[in-house]
Amino acid sequence: MSVNTFGRLFRFTTWGESHGPAIGAVVDGCPPGLALDEHVIQPFLDARRPGQSKYTTQRQEPDQVRILSGVFEAPDGVQRTTGTPVSLMIENVDQRSKDYSDVARAYRPGHADYAYDAKYGFRDYRGGGRSSARETASRVAAGALARLVIPEVKICAYVSEIGGDMIDPANFDEHEITNNPFFCPDVAAAARWEKIVDDARKSGSSVGAVVECYASGVPAGWGAPLYGKLDADLAAAMMGINAVKGVEIGDGFAAARLTGEGNADPMQPNTETGPDGAPEFLANHAGGIAGGISTGQPVTCRVAFKPTSSILTPQPTVTRPNEKGEREATELFTKGRHDPCVGIRGVPVVEAMMALVLADHKLLHRGQCG
Amino acid sequence: MSVNTFGRLFRFTTWGESHGPAIGAVVDGCPPGLALDEHVIQPFLDARRPGQSKYTTQRQEPDQVRILSGVFEAPDGVQRTTGTPVSLMIENVDQRSKDYSDVARAYRPGHADYAYDAKYGFRDYRGGGRSSARETASRVAAGALARLVIPEVKICAYVSEIGGDMIDPANFDEHEITNNPFFCPDVAAAARWEKIVDDARKSGSSVGAVVECYASGVPAGWGAPLYGKLDADLAAAMMGINAVKGVEIGDGFAAARLTGEGNADPMQPNTETGPDGAPEFLANHAGGIAGGISTGQPVTCRVAFKPTSSILTPQPTVTRPNEKGEREATELFTKGRHDPCVGIRGVPVVEAMMALVLADHKLLHRGQCG
Amino acid sequence: MSVNTFGRLFRFTTWGESHGPAIGAVVDGCPPGLALDEHVIQPFLDARRPGQSKYTTQRQEPDQVRILSGVFEAPDGVQRTTGTPVSLMIENVDQRSKDYSDVARAYRPGHADYAYDAKYGFRDYRGGGRSSARETASRVAAGALARLVIPEVKICAYVSEIGGDMIDPANFDEHEITNNPFFCPDVAAAARWEKIVDDARKSGSSVGAVVECYASGVPAGWGAPLYGKLDADLAAAMMGINAVKGVEIGDGFAAARLTGEGNADPMQPNTETGPDGAPEFLANHAGGIAGGISTGQPVTCRVAFKPTSSILTPQPTVTRPNEKGEREATELFTKGRHDPCVGIRGVPVVEAMMALVLADHKLLHRGQCG
Amino acid sequence: MSVNTFGRLFRFTTWGESHGPAIGAVVDGCPPGLALDEHVIQPFLDARRPGQSKYTTQRQEPDQVRILSGVFEAPDGVQRTTGTPVSLMIENVDQRSKDYSDVARAYRPGHADYAYDAKYGFRDYRGGGRSSARETASRVAAGALARLVIPEVKICAYVSEIGGDMIDPANFDEHEITNNPFFCPDVAAAARWEKIVDDARKSGSSVGAVVECYASGVPAGWGAPLYGKLDADLAAAMMGINAVKGVEIGDGFAAARLTGEGNADPMQPNTETGPDGAPEFLANHAGGIAGGISTGQPVTCRVAFKPTSSILTPQPTVTRPNEKGEREATELFTKGRHDPCVGIRGVPVVEAMMALVLADHKLLHRGQCG
Repeated sequence: MSVNTFGRLFRFTTWGESHGPAIGAVVDGCPPGLALDEHVIQPFLDARRPGQSKYTTQRQEPDQVRILSGVFEAPDGVQRTTGTPVSLMIENVDQRSKDYSDVARAYRPGHADYAYDAKYGFRDYRGGGRSSARETASRVAAGALARLVIPEVKICAYVSEIGGDMIDPANFDEHEITNNPFFCPDVAAAARWEKIVDDARKSGSSVGAVVECYASGVPAGWGAPLYGKLDADLAAAMMGINAVKGVEIGDGFAAARLTGEGNADPMQPNTETGPDGAPEFLANHAGGIAGGISTGQPVTCRVAFKPTSSILTPQPTVTRPNEKGEREATELFTKGRHDPCVGIRGVPVVEAMMALVLADHKLLHRGQCG
Repeated sequence: MSVNTFGRLFRFTTWGESHGPAIGAVVDGCPPGLALDEHVIQPFLDARRPGQSKYTTQRQEPDQVRILSGVFEAPDGVQRTTGTPVSLMIENVDQRSKDYSDVARAYRPGHADYAYDAKYGFRDYRGGGRSSARETASRVAAGALARLVIPEVKICAYVSEIGGDMIDPANFDEHEITNNPFFCPDVAAAARWEKIVDDARKSGSSVGAVVECYASGVPAGWGAPLYGKLDADLAAAMMGINAVKGVEIGDGFAAARLTGEGNADPMQPNTETGPDGAPEFLANHAGGIAGGISTGQPVTCRVAFKPTSSILTPQPTVTRPNEKGEREATELFTKGRHDPCVGIRGVPVVEAMMALVLADHKLLHRGQCG
Repeated sequence: MSVNTFGRLFRFTTWGESHGPAIGAVVDGCPPGLALDEHVIQPFLDARRPGQSKYTTQRQEPDQVRILSGVFEAPDGVQRTTGTPVSLMIENVDQRSKDYSDVARAYRPGHADYAYDAKYGFRDYRGGGRSSARETASRVAAGALARLVIPEVKICAYVSEIGGDMIDPANFDEHEITNNPFFCPDVAAAARWEKIVDDARKSGSSVGAVVECYASGVPAGWGAPLYGKLDADLAAAMMGINAVKGVEIGDGFAAARLTGEGNADPMQPNTETGPDGAPEFLANHAGGIAGGISTGQPVTCRVAFKPTSSILTPQPTVTRPNEKGEREATELFTKGRHDPCVGIRGVPVVEAMMALVLADHKLLHRGQCG
Repeated sequence: MSVNTFGRLFRFTTWGESHGPAIGAVVDGCPPGLALDEHVIQPFLDARRPGQSKYTTQRQEPDQVRILSGVFEAPDGVQRTTGTPVSLMIENVDQRSKDYSDVARAYRPGHADYAYDAKYGFRDYRGGGRSSARETASRVAAGALARLVIPEVKICAYVSEIGGDMIDPANFDEHEITNNPFFCPDVAAAARWEKIVDDARKSGSSVGAVVECYASGVPAGWGAPLYGKLDADLAAAMMGINAVKGVEIGDGFAAARLTGEGNADPMQPNTETGPDGAPEFLANHAGGIAGGISTGQPVTCRVAFKPTSSILTPQPTVTRPNEKGEREATELFTKGRHDPCVGIRGVPVVEAMMALVLADHKLLHRGQCG
């Protein structure tokens, strides 16, 4: 099967392949009346755009988004969403002409090549086709709309670890995140990572990364137990990003090593707003979610990105069956452009998926609990 | 919102609260012709059943399942699924009569109490109501049906870590798993865990655990990219289990510390079935999934269970607003029965969710790709 | 496939066969805080219940509904919905023991027997199994909950035609509807229908009927264009009722014979609430829906019920394949109890489906448009 | 809410407004390996295209479809579907520049103008915006893909009635359907309709129509009881087409006037294929569907199109609230191009929706019943 739609009330459907004429998304269920034009979306695409430093792939894509439907000049003269589907299109520009005969003939290990062939019988092998990380541009564009739905929420993602080298929480400075090519909140770590990623790049290798994300301002009550839990939806959203292999909410795996006392999130009457306000939590091991429902604390998650499988070192692999129906042993390596650390460009995607999940749950909550 | 249905073609909907008259599940989309009576389901419920050792809650529930629809005597004289919904019901028996006035009045920290109140305005506070782990019995029952759909797949889950103490992979013996009350494949670890869990139990504390699960026999090609990826669906399925805070596929977070070479899963022509068979993988860092589609290797995941929040140590918390609309500070602790390590009883639930996701994807694949 | 769930935000799933132990429904997405106990549901089931006059089947079913989950005593002392799934169960009592060997062996013409066999390979042949109109009791029970969601809406259905004999609109008296066994708003027609239906009953024949339904109080703005239009959802809801073969919204097929002028629904400023109110419509050919969205006028539909295929006149048919794989010619007729006019008992079902569609769309509208 | 996706396994999502830059559809779940390029789709769009005779609107749209994703050269050298989403785009060309100030200010009676405003707060008023029949081009394009999924099925629709004037079944000649501008299978009726439609056109009026459709070759067993019945899905599909007010399956409302004997569809062993084949039906009152499942007979339906509300006769209506929040009485009539009988161009749309529903159910059946 093919399932290219995400969400329940706030839904988006993406389409397009890495080397086709364009990629895009249709966002359906967006509330009417939100001020929207291309300039609202473009900054998020620019943050994800490749070719901006030597630490990411050199493919040059302007990633200019075009809005094809779902907006109109409102009575106040501002272009706004009308409540009908918003169709977004991004043309593919830099599909570098090259010889694909090797990847057409054999499977790149660690990539989706063999799996797609096994499922569908054949595949668009140019640049990974549908399984290319290029598709995440569509998510980022859709995420920009989702943000309009949840103006009360602030979302912030950053890289906390590259190649096993972690940031020092004591150095955390949110303003640093956009000051370096790694979305790194720790200026010292960013300096170290330059060498780690550059070494990987030069040697044709790649390194993994961990991205952390929090959303503050989420009110208590969003979530859809039991099979649309906020944390379960986030887990699906994050695990569905290319190259992601692990997701944690709150303390995640570390919670499995705590005792019940150590993991407790005690509460007290609100010392700021007074006792008639929401309770105040004294810890946030839970990552802002209990029973699948937001608690009013920041929603936090951690996402593990594997090192990209596109490396210059030849790897043993097999061919598609030849005319005798037999597979042959061969070796493949990635020629040309690649991302030495795909996790870096995952940051805007993680933010987008967080926004998309939260926007959906805001509408779902409003629908049922009015 | 409330979303109590899981799956696309093979779907189940659960209902029921911890202390209501019963809990249950409706399984819809089950293929016709599968031999099914209560004896097919009961062993899986028995494995999850509480009160079987001193290491789990002492609530005594026979968990006898009743099939209310969807089966009929087939022409061969065997009772089989008819293709219509299978309604499963499990009566609640041991809802121990007790005084709930404290949990009615205040929120247990770490539980879903406050979140449910914030969402729905009030809650069934008896034993956690809908958010109780008791609901997982319905999943296990539904999972038994899912297994019938995928006879080619073998699913095996076990506890690999309790309270930070891990099994030694060198000691792994699958046959040990059912020989101890911890679903532990390492006889030495099981011996150590007796003390860890018993200490927690005696001191009224609790410990976390990690459950690992693999499914072998999954053919290449199951999965529904891009927003119903096999790994994303597994992540949602596992993260939605009570007390789960982290999910990994394959190497998970460890992959973020590998290089591209170290994380590669090279292939070669099949040395057993010959070159016209499926390729043979030389490693399985990916956990049997690439691009959201199964590769034919074992599908593997790891799931982190937090220590249960039901502990005997009083924790600061707040009350529901009083008549003046104000919350008061108070303390709560769990009286009576509790699970010192909820992860243990999570093992049959993890297996069930694995089966449910795979059964759904088998049908989805068959639907689209014939 | 099997799809036993209806609705998007307000969803219900039904299960059960005519001669199994019970039937039931799980209602999910019901808003919290609605006062609900069995007495809220029972009157609607009683209206649909068989065996209440000689004009309907003589099967005696008390149709006592039991609520198994999703309600709890609210802080105000009233039992209310909690926002979690409401499980409803109705035991089957009068599954008269009889010899089913003829329907097990051959297909009743006009029934779903052959189609179920063709789809699923075999079937529960007792009383129609899953395809029995008995299932509509579950819809009626779920519909009672839906009504709680839309207290602003008044729903009224009635029979407007039996055996080709129509009511006279000039005689329409809503109070008559519950004064006769036909849900007939025209006292003169009701008198005529006694003979029509009784003749059909005595001769072992059956007659068709048309049910009309309107819902007043629906505000403008409900509906989900373009593929969840209010009228499209109503069409699906009504066409899915057993024995229904046609659905009209507003003027329906008669509109195809009008000119644009004759079919116009002109508007004027509201003469009652003043010009700042909703516009006033001067006609309602559209049946209260334009572009798939409610206009504020009464939502109206007409539903055609075929005569039941359960008749005493033998009909040519075929057997299941015998041991040689061959079908044999045979004849079948219905022994025992049957409904001479199934459309009559369709009235509470049509009302329930109207309520279920409207409740769902109220929540959907609130979710997106706040 | 906004629901712009149709289908379960074979799904399509449409987007676009009448006077935006383009319209389009994303088809998801299409099986891989189907030969597809623009030439496969274009003939169906050409059949629906406006401006081809004086009996339809004079808007000139080339309706050239472009495939943006989801196809690739297969190993056999033919461009085929890959199993990933197929994005289709049709540019709007002839959005005639005109003054929209009157429809911006007031609501056209019978159109969706007021309903959209009531739902979303404002609307794209140019040419009907999203509610324009122009959107049906997207359905027709998606329907062309659906046909590839069901090569065993032949679909045929035609107009059977215009302005109350019906075809004579004795004159039915399928080959005539494409020989006249009315999709009329009765050459005599087509001649009469020239005057009826031309009179309506000249007088600025409009007339309604009935479209009939049958699908032969549908095997027994497609359908998804109870809430995805084949007939219920068809009813939703047809009722969701612009201007449709009624849907019948098989005998429809006429069945309500038959007796059980008159409505019977008796069976006999197959006289052509022999007794081991599917049974042979002696009538088809049911329209090829029983219990929501296909029986192997032709699936038949009738669809009522109202006369378009776009007429030259001024109709009373109201304005949007002015600065005092008050609506004013006014009159509106349609200037310029309009369809004197929208039902005519509904024929390719009805065929497309039939194909889309059947393709979806074929995949659903294969998924569950393998």
